Amino acid sequence: MSASVKAYDELITRLKKAALLRSCSAILEWDEQTYLPPAGAGHRADQLALMAGMVHQEATSPEIGDLLQELESVSEWEADSIEQANIRETRHEYDRMTKLPRRLVEELSRVATLSHHAWVKARQENQFKDFLPWLEQMIDLKREQAAALGFQGQKAYDALLDEYEPGATSEMIEQAFSPLRNELVKLVAAIHDSGISPDVSILTRKYPVEKQREFSISAAEKIGFDFHSGRLDIAAHPFCTGIGPGDCRLTTRYDEQHFPGAFFGTLHEAGHGIYEQGLLKEYFGTPVGSSTSLGIHESQSRMWENLVGRSRSFWDCFYQSAQAQFPEALTNVSQEDFYRAINDVRPSYIRVEADEVTYNLHIMLRFELEQALIAGDLQPTDLETAWNEKFTEYFGITPDTPAHGCLQDVHWSAGLIGYFPTYALGNMYAAHFFNAANRELGGLDELISRGEFVPLKEWLNQKIHQQGKRYRANRLLEVVTGESLSHEPLVAQLSRKYSELYNL
Amino acid sequence: MSASVKAYDELITRLKKAALLRSCSAILEWDEQTYLPPAGAGHRADQLALMAGMVHQEATSPEIGDLLQELESVSEWEADSIEQANIRETRHEYDRMTKLPRRLVEELSRVATLSHHAWVKARQENQFKDFLPWLEQMIDLKREQAAALGFQGQKAYDALLDEYEPGATSEMIEQAFSPLRNELVKLVAAIHDSGISPDVSILTRKYPVEKQREFSISAAEKIGFDFHSGRLDIAAHPFCTGIGPGDCRLTTRYDEQHFPGAFFGTLHEAGHGIYEQGLLKEYFGTPVGSSTSLGIHESQSRMWENLVGRSRSFWDCFYQSAQAQFPEALTNVSQEDFYRAINDVRPSYIRVEADEVTYNLHIMLRFELEQALIAGDLQPTDLETAWNEKFTEYFGITPDTPAHGCLQDVHWSAGLIGYFPTYALGNMYAAHFFNAANRELGGLDELISRGEFVPLKEWLNQKIHQQGKRYRANRLLEVVTGESLSHEPLVAQLSRKYSELYNL
Repeated sequence: MSASVKAYDELITRLKKAALLRSCSAILEWDEQTYLPPAGAGHRADQLALMAGMVHQEATSPEIGDLLQELESVSEWEADSIEQANIRETRHEYDRMTKLPRRLVEELSRVATLSHHAWVKARQENQFKDFLPWLEQMIDLKREQAAALGFQGQKAYDALLDEYEPGATSEMIEQAFSPLRNELVKLVAAIHDSGISPDVSILTRKYPVEKQREFSISAAEKIGFDFHSGRLDIAAHPFCTGIGPGDCRLTTRYDEQHFPGAFFGTLHEAGHGIYEQGLLKEYFGTPVGSSTSLGIHESQSRMWENLVGRSRSFWDCFYQSAQAQFPEALTNVSQEDFYRAINDVRPSYIRVEADEVTYNLHIMLRFELEQALIAGDLQPTDLETAWNEKFTEYFGITPDTPAHGCLQDVHWSAGLIGYFPTYALGNMYAAHFFNAANRELGGLDELISRGEFVPLKEWLNQKIHQQGKRYRANRLLEVVTGESLSHEPLVAQLSRKYSELYNL
Repeated sequence: MSASVKAYDELITRLKKAALLRSCSAILEWDEQTYLPPAGAGHRADQLALMAGMVHQEATSPEIGDLLQELESVSEWEADSIEQANIRETRHEYDRMTKLPRRLVEELSRVATLSHHAWVKARQENQFKDFLPWLEQMIDLKREQAAALGFQGQKAYDALLDEYEPGATSEMIEQAFSPLRNELVKLVAAIHDSGISPDVSILTRKYPVEKQREFSISAAEKIGFDFHSGRLDIAAHPFCTGIGPGDCRLTTRYDEQHFPGAFFGTLHEAGHGIYEQGLLKEYFGTPVGSSTSLGIHESQSRMWENLVGRSRSFWDCFYQSAQAQFPEALTNVSQEDFYRAINDVRPSYIRVEADEVTYNLHIMLRFELEQALIAGDLQPTDLETAWNEKFTEYFGITPDTPAHGCLQDVHWSAGLIGYFPTYALGNMYAAHFFNAANRELGGLDELISRGEFVPLKEWLNQKIHQQGKRYRANRLLEVVTGESLSHEPLVAQLSRKYSELYNL
């Protein structure tokens, strides 16, 4: 065994240990959002802060630095090889982590837990002012984090963004968002002017919660989420967390009077889950056994939720069982009317319930506001007003309450700043990937209408999931599709679909 | 601040950190038994082994040893003071832990997790042979653990027992069990000879699971378990785990055809939970903020389950709502018939469903067998036969399947050897405590029949829970009741109750 192979193996062992420890935190975080008794929040914050500190210590050990240096000094790794990718991405992560003092890491963790609970309560009670002190603390900490990370010549925000979308900058994202915004605004206006308005009241009839749960689980299972290695629970804000091999967890929330929330939410999270379950188990704990970016992650969830789940073909396969499952709500509703209702486009307050077209505008609004918060151009105390003004500008309607406005999302409370743009990136990536899968597999629509999801799932497994962090997002896109990121595939898909629906 | 006060504070800080880390493991363990997806067992075993190793490292740090030595060399601590107790019990724990190599601690943890899952499956499938290799591995590890701990002049088993009942020895326990056994055998025979046999079929009518859950929760709440700081979930083997301040979790299991299982199981676990919730939060992580022994813990659970929950007074308060909750099963059943059914005494296979009288015989059987396993006098491969023979000797009936025999309990699979005798000790302690509470509060029966549980709960809080490990079990008994451990109070209680029920 050469010295560098030995060093590489030792690096992998250390990475796996740090990942194993991190996965213990992941269970504590999952539990915090699902089953933690209310009075346990303070203790949980202490637990998570301790764990964050210990993970940080493992992941920043000088031994990892020495091993990296040794490995970088030899040139035996092939380009695009697993080893090269593991070394490259470990270096990236190691450099990020070592710039952060353990105190800050623990503080961020502790405040995130407490702030999350404050957010849940403030949102329930519709009081922005109750959340404000936590937001202020969090923005201060995130600015401190950005400063510690450094952002040579770029914006402080970019240092945060890099955690979720390695290598991306706000400038690159704005370049992609700008033409997308123009096209979407035109499309929304055309849809509005069409005068067509589907009957969405059929989606707010009575859908018993237990029936929704069964139906969501059966759909998630059918598209390929493995419940032997996973589960679905309830949380205030839906999420997916991949704990480790054989353990990936989805959450959703149910509203008896609203079908799409839990159902498409579950498809969305199952899309994340299928990515996590598709990572190669033998690489667990190393970069090539991890998802490559949140943008790519969202491309998977948004693809299953929208390109698959809101397609006509999908309901060719599922509508009969939906009617059987919800006879009271759907017996007299035609499949076409149902299909039109779940694809109704109109300005609305809540991002996670927004249609495919306006969804990206919700993201752009958040992207602008969180950049301003980190730059110091917007004070947290002015957020509610700024949100409402910008919302009115984008959507022509003004949120009636903070819960329908700046309090609706969990992210900022949990310190996830720089996360939002990855959703819209995900929509763009998804359009690229879906086209490529369609080209290579041939007739995706027909497969879907027959309930044959295995070919698409396995294509994604092989092309994307099993690659882990071998390629960064844009390079992965290039390798898989031969294309560079563009708004065009997404705009083309949306135009095609909605022109037909709204006679444009 | 004197040097020793400073050293004491530093010791406390270190203990709290180790306890915080241990409480992270407790969540992983709870999750393992409640919500872990089947395929996640291997990863969970790795997580728990890593955490066990890290906890061990924290708890055995040389700094703790140095601090202890410094603190033991000064004599400023008052007898029975909090400080003295914390130093004494930390020394006890530190000496135990430092004798165990980290490798063994991790191995015990890993094997316990995997063995637990093997046990669940073997029990479901009723195959002792599938569990046997795990039992063999576990017994070997426990013998290795006992050898590492040392047991000067005593039995290897005593080294294990000491973990659950500090300071106790198998000889002391046998001295208490021996007269108890004689009295119980006589009582069981007298009951059998009475010819009286309550109609227990009323307990196996239809009790809808959701209704059982509601009823169990309302009873647990009424006796004083705080659901704002706790919860109740489902597990294969019921347990209670105190995670930390504000977070204590109970589990139970439901059988639609069997009322007592979930109901008395929940009361039992709630009794444990009330102890955990009664510990002083400010002492979390230190000995005086921890329960003093499993025997005392069981005295709390068995008291609420039996001395309270199976009393006539309890059902004076609860029977009407039971009838309202389970009309199909109970409408035409008198309270007296119900009371007699839940106090039916007869030999049966399952310990956790056994009546108060035969229960202790189940314990004695396990106590004998596990001593023989650790001594090497009984080989794991012969356990099933030995169990069945001894069972027949004790109860006059022979288990029809391993699930009704040596596979019924979780303990050995999880490495909990030396744990069983604490249940019977708990019954004896409970009788002492209940008598004392009755003397001091006056008319406990009447309070209970009026649904007034606060006086008893607060008496226990103050006398027992808030003391933590300030006193060891026997000393606590003496401080609280002025008595020494004896079988007599328990035998007197049982004789009184069952003489009336069976016209003895």
